[in-house]
Amino acid sequence: MHYIGIDIGGTNIKAGRIDDSGQVSALEKAPTPTNDLNALVATIERIVVTLQSNATVSGIGIGVPGLRNARTGIIQTAPHIRSIRGVNLEQLLQDKLKLPVVTENDANAGAYGEWACGAGKGRQHVAYITLGTGLGCGLIFPGKLFRGVSGYAGELGHTVVEPDGRPCACGAVGCLETRVSATGIVQTAWEAHFGGEGVTAEDVYKAAMQGDRIAIGIFQETGRYLGMACSNLINLLNPEAIVIGGGVMASGDLLLAAAREEVNRRAFAPSAADCAIVQSHLWPDAGIIGAAMLARDSS
Amino acid sequence: MHYIGIDIGGTNIKAGRIDDSGQVSALEKAPTPTNDLNALVATIERIVVTLQSNATVSGIGIGVPGLRNARTGIIQTAPHIRSIRGVNLEQLLQDKLKLPVVTENDANAGAYGEWACGAGKGRQHVAYITLGTGLGCGLIFPGKLFRGVSGYAGELGHTVVEPDGRPCACGAVGCLETRVSATGIVQTAWEAHFGGEGVTAEDVYKAAMQGDRIAIGIFQETGRYLGMACSNLINLLNPEAIVIGGGVMASGDLLLAAAREEVNRRAFAPSAADCAIVQSHLWPDAGIIGAAMLARDSS
Repeated sequence: MHYIGIDIGGTNIKAGRIDDSGQVSALEKAPTPTNDLNALVATIERIVVTLQSNATVSGIGIGVPGLRNARTGIIQTAPHIRSIRGVNLEQLLQDKLKLPVVTENDANAGAYGEWACGAGKGRQHVAYITLGTGLGCGLIFPGKLFRGVSGYAGELGHTVVEPDGRPCACGAVGCLETRVSATGIVQTAWEAHFGGEGVTAEDVYKAAMQGDRIAIGIFQETGRYLGMACSNLINLLNPEAIVIGGGVMASGDLLLAAAREEVNRRAFAPSAADCAIVQSHLWPDAGIIGAAMLARDSS
Repeated sequence: MHYIGIDIGGTNIKAGRIDDSGQVSALEKAPTPTNDLNALVATIERIVVTLQSNATVSGIGIGVPGLRNARTGIIQTAPHIRSIRGVNLEQLLQDKLKLPVVTENDANAGAYGEWACGAGKGRQHVAYITLGTGLGCGLIFPGKLFRGVSGYAGELGHTVVEPDGRPCACGAVGCLETRVSATGIVQTAWEAHFGGEGVTAEDVYKAAMQGDRIAIGIFQETGRYLGMACSNLINLLNPEAIVIGGGVMASGDLLLAAAREEVNRRAFAPSAADCAIVQSHLWPDAGIIGAAMLARDSS
């Protein structure tokens, strides 16, 4: 059996044909039409046709960057892709493609992927954090995707870590995402007078790898906040594992070492002892694999 | 059918005989022997015998102020009652009393009570916060007590809201409990130069009720932090209701109004719209009623 997993990002749509054990056998990519629903649907149709060309596909899973109402299937908010706001994208695509389609919040899809066939496999209580431009999170417990009452659960990036902290894209201040994300790293770099106009998280990472003390400090500070996020999850939810992925995690141990130190300072010892903090196994494909596994398991 | 619900506090043991609909028909109270396990067990035995004197009891539920390992039944930590640390209290009491006994973290028991027959009744996703000397929390979802992988979940009081905040009794700094609890209110009062040595949260409340602006400000600030806690729960867990109880909630609307304002500023609108923030219906008996209902539902 094959499934198609699709991840609709703010810049690109990424898709794969994935077998029922989570192996990717083909990949496709296209720019995301963000303001035109018809163009978005046409792009997805083209991708699906291509991925169907030499294998039978049984279903499609799609990760979307927004809040999906689990009762109605409607995308309630999607800040970066306004055209899908208020749309039941799975119904729309199902009618066009004549295949079962499920949609899910993109970080939830990633969490499901890591749990079904990645770093969280075999565990019942897993939290997944993905660090890119923002901070996404999905929760698995016990042994299934946790959606909350309406499907909106998992917005760890918008929990407060500093009451009067940095302004966040969501409109609030002091959200975790303002510290622990590529955007947060860039802001921390500015505040540390590192680099000039247009400095990126990758620039900071490269400098840190070359031993630049300020750059290392920026990653350590980011890791410290990541550790607070992990401590909060550990104390509140007592998970077996926290799996961390996303582009920023290319920096791996630099962040994780500082995060683990902070967890040791803050989390309750018995709960911390139960919880492995590990890197994603599926990055950069966690989202499409998870979406495909959601299609597999909902059929 | 009747059950006995017991709440072992740092100062007093409180117990009730409770029918299977959650009605309390008798109450007992005794000082807690905190450093002598035999004396503690003897006190509980005496209370149970008294409550059995004119009704048949089918089981006993006990809330304990600490982390209970759900796999082994052992009380892993109990900062205020050292004698029960490392003890399987339910096994010990079951052998003595010849009745089924279950133990549970005290805030979890309160959450279960509010969900089974209080302000959370009929809902599937409920978070419960109890404000006393510290801040306790229990989570119900979906439709049952959420314990995490080992039984330690629910320690909202020890999630970070200020990275470099006040020292907490747990050894970390900046925990929510250092702001939102009777202890936190007293600290805020000191910082605001309100009252003198020995000022209590109740003193601050009484002054606020008489229109004292500083006292009102102290409660508003406490409510603001309570609102951050609620926002964090809403964004992370998307519950249907947050039920707030405990002695500090005698101040009711004074805290809740400020908390709701902060939620409106911070929580995602669709998730906030789904979540009622309400006062406990069972206070001050939520803990014993919940413990009894846990005994009912585990038999």
